Amino acid sequence: MEKVALAEAFDSFDEQWSPRLAGELNGQAVKLAKAEGEFVWHHHEDADELFLVVSGELTIELREDSDIVLQEGEFVIVPRGVEHRPVTDSEAEILLFEPSETRNTGNVESERTKTDLEQLD
Amino acid sequence: MEKVALAEAFDSFDEQWSPRLAGELNGQAVKLAKAEGEFVWHHHEDADELFLVVSGELTIELREDSDIVLQEGEFVIVPRGVEHRPVTDSEAEILLFEPSETRNTGNVESERTKTDLEQLD
Repeated sequence: MEKVALAEAFDSFDEQWSPRLAGELNGQAVKLAKAEGEFVWHHHEDADELFLVVSGELTIELREDSDIVLQEGEFVIVPRGVEHRPVTDSEAEILLFEPSETRNTGNVESERTKTDLEQLD
Repeated sequence: MEKVALAEAFDSFDEQWSPRLAGELNGQAVKLAKAEGEFVWHHHEDADELFLVVSGELTIELREDSDIVLQEGEFVIVPRGVEHRPVTDSEAEILLFEPSETRNTGNVESERTKTDLEQLD
């Protein structure tokens, strides 16, 4: 049983939009991602998704609702089926919580799609 | 869909060892708790449990392993079946992630047992 220090974990990689697996429990995964710019519009058919901002600011754009702007220490849960697009002006560090098998781009295949989730060092 | 600001959420209650429900996704719950002193030794038969320290310091004592000391921004996942006891010298603010139905004292019935989880305001 090893603890994870978020600051150290984020320092261990640079790649953006490429979530790292930081832990698993009850079939769910804790993933850490760096984000900058615009992601792709997508939804997850069978997975609710939690976004917690660890540093920076992240906007969750929603097709059918107002944007949600998350500052450091704020989280939102995007329910399954809800189309969304994470967007950020400058780099943000994000903790994701979702089922282990959830694909980052959900229903969409794009250059941003990551099929192999990298483990943290 | 409403965001949750952790600092505000923790400001909204004072009671210690009484987790508040801050969100639910995929059958799992995000719970926020204030902790000070010693909790009871217990385990969860069917639930892994994540402890993330939002402020302060929290020690997870383990019957069969070394203690794990968590500072702000650090988390650990205690696997199902592992007997543990959270302990802290001064007040810590903790985010818990675990199945919605998980009881705070696990297999143990104690004065610390909370059967009704309060919702955040």
